[in-house]
Amino acid sequence: MSGEGLILPLAGLAGAAVCATSGALAAGRKRLDLIGASFLACATALGGGTLRDLLLDRHPVFWVERPAILWTTLAATVLALLWVRFARPPWRALQVADALGLAFFTISGAQVAEAAGQGGVIVVVMGLLTGVAGGVIRDVLAGEIPLLFRPTEPLYATASLAGVTFHQVGQRLGLDPGWAALGGMGLVLALRLGAVVLGWRLPALELKDGAS
Amino acid sequence: MSGEGLILPLAGLAGAAVCATSGALAAGRKRLDLIGASFLACATALGGGTLRDLLLDRHPVFWVERPAILWTTLAATVLALLWVRFARPPWRALQVADALGLAFFTISGAQVAEAAGQGGVIVVVMGLLTGVAGGVIRDVLAGEIPLLFRPTEPLYATASLAGVTFHQVGQRLGLDPGWAALGGMGLVLALRLGAVVLGWRLPALELKDGAS
Amino acid sequence: MSGEGLILPLAGLAGAAVCATSGALAAGRKRLDLIGASFLACATALGGGTLRDLLLDRHPVFWVERPAILWTTLAATVLALLWVRFARPPWRALQVADALGLAFFTISGAQVAEAAGQGGVIVVVMGLLTGVAGGVIRDVLAGEIPLLFRPTEPLYATASLAGVTFHQVGQRLGLDPGWAALGGMGLVLALRLGAVVLGWRLPALELKDGAS
Repeated sequence: MSGEGLILPLAGLAGAAVCATSGALAAGRKRLDLIGASFLACATALGGGTLRDLLLDRHPVFWVERPAILWTTLAATVLALLWVRFARPPWRALQVADALGLAFFTISGAQVAEAAGQGGVIVVVMGLLTGVAGGVIRDVLAGEIPLLFRPTEPLYATASLAGVTFHQVGQRLGLDPGWAALGGMGLVLALRLGAVVLGWRLPALELKDGAS
Repeated sequence: MSGEGLILPLAGLAGAAVCATSGALAAGRKRLDLIGASFLACATALGGGTLRDLLLDRHPVFWVERPAILWTTLAATVLALLWVRFARPPWRALQVADALGLAFFTISGAQVAEAAGQGGVIVVVMGLLTGVAGGVIRDVLAGEIPLLFRPTEPLYATASLAGVTFHQVGQRLGLDPGWAALGGMGLVLALRLGAVVLGWRLPALELKDGAS
Repeated sequence: MSGEGLILPLAGLAGAAVCATSGALAAGRKRLDLIGASFLACATALGGGTLRDLLLDRHPVFWVERPAILWTTLAATVLALLWVRFARPPWRALQVADALGLAFFTISGAQVAEAAGQGGVIVVVMGLLTGVAGGVIRDVLAGEIPLLFRPTEPLYATASLAGVTFHQVGQRLGLDPGWAALGGMGLVLALRLGAVVLGWRLPALELKDGAS
C-alpha cells in the first residue's frame, strides 16, 4: 500500500474539517444563524473539490458518490460552531484553519487530477484550484474580498502553487508519492503561516493613477 | 398520472417567473439598464437548476434541452421589469417573490434529484442548493451579501431545508408525492414569510472579538 | 478553408491575451501580489469559455484539452503585469481591453456552441455567457460590482447580445461565417466603445422607494 493511499483519505477528512472550521469562523463573524452558518461551512469545505470534479468531468462528484463526506463535514461544522459560540476564537484562528485547508486540498486536488490521468500543468492548476476555491467561495458568499486577493493576506496562491509544484517535481525526481505529498503540504503551510505570522510577502503590483 | 407529474412543470414555470421577478426587482434597485436587468433576472431564475444539473451530470442542462424555458423566463422578466418601472414595488415584494422562488425550486430540485436516482441526503442537498442558489447568484452578481447570509434575513436556508426534509420524510411515511411536494413548498413559504413578516428566527452565532 | 477556421484560433489567442490584460489591470488596481494577480488574470481569460464548456458538457474543458492555452494566457498575463507595473495604464485601458475580450469571446463562444450542434437561442445565450462571464468572474473575485451590472458602464450585455445576434442572423441570411464573425465582433466593439467613449446608453430602470 503506497503512501498516497494513506494520505488521500486523511487529507480529505482533515481538509473538510478545517475548511468547515474556517467557514464556521467566517459565519460567526457575520452573525449568521445556525443553518446559514452550516451552509457556508459546507460550501467552504466542499467547494474546491466540487469545482475540480466538474472541470475534470469526474462524476458522481465526490460528495454525491460518498455522502459520508457530507456527514463528516456537518459534524466538523457543528463542532466548529460550538467552538465559535463558546470559545470566541480570534481572527488568527481563521487564518490558520484556512492555511491547513489550503495545504490539504492543494495536494489532494493534485492527487485526484493525477488519478484522472492528467499530467504536468493541469495537475498543478487543479491542485491550485482545489486548494484556493473553497476559501474563495466562502469569502465571495460572505460578501468579502477573498483572502486570496487581499493585499494584507500575502503568499496565498503562491503557497498553494509552490506546494503543488514541489509535489509534482519531487515525484518526477523519484520522491515517494507519500513523502512528496507530505512535503508539498508542509511547504504550503510553511509559506502561508510564514506570511501570516512573520510577514513574508512577494512584491505587490504598483498602479497609482487608475480611477474608481 | 401522479401528482408529481402535475407539480413539476407548474413549479418550473412559476418558479422561473417569480425568480425572474426577484431578479428584476434587484436590478431595479441597482438602476441597471434593460439588458443587464434581463441578464440578472435570468441568472436568478435559472442559476439554481443549472448548478443542480451540473452537479448531477444531467445533460443537456434543463434550459439547453428545452429552450422554451428561456422564453418563459424572458417573458416573466419583461413583465417584472414593466412592473418595476411603473408600479415601484417595495422591498417587501422582493422578499415575497424570493420566498416563492425558494419554495418552488427547493421542491422541484429535490424531485429532479429523485428522478436521477439519488436518495436521502443528496436529494435534500440538491433541493437546498436548487432553492437557494439562484438568489445567491443574484445577490453576488449585484454586489450584495446574499439574503441567505444576512443576519437581518433569518430562516432562509432553514426554511428550504425544512421543506425538503418534510418532502422526503413525508414520502417515506407513505404520503402521496404530490401532497408531499405541496406540503414541502407550503412549509418553506410559511417559515420564510413567518421570518420576514413576524420576525421568527433561529439564534445567531455570537462571536465578538474577531478582527476585521 | 473557411473563414471560421481562421477566426476561431485567432479569437482564442487574442481574447485570452486581452482578457488576461484586463485581469492584470484589475489586479494592479487592487495591489495584489504577482501570483494573486496572475490567478485573477487567468480566471478572467478562461472563465467564460470554461462555463460554456461545462454548460454544453464539452469535455475535456478547452484548456484541459490544450494546455498550450494556459501558457499563452500566462505569457499575456506576464506582459500585462509588466505593463501595469511600469507604464501605469489608465482606467480607460481596462475598459478597452475588456471590450476587446467581450467581442472576441462572444463570437467564439457562439461558434463553439454551433460546432456542438446547438442552434438558435442557445447559441446566442452561449455567446453572451462566454463573452461576459470572464469579466463577471474577475469583478466578483476582486470584490467589485461587475462592469456588466454597473449603471455607469452601459451597453455591456447589450453589445454582446447585439453582436452574437448579428452573427447568427447574418449567417441565416447567407453571410459567409467568417464575415459574420468579423461583423459580429465589430458590432460588439462599436457599441461598447461607443458607450464608453461617447456615452451611448439604454434607458436605466427607475425604482425609487425600494429600501436598503
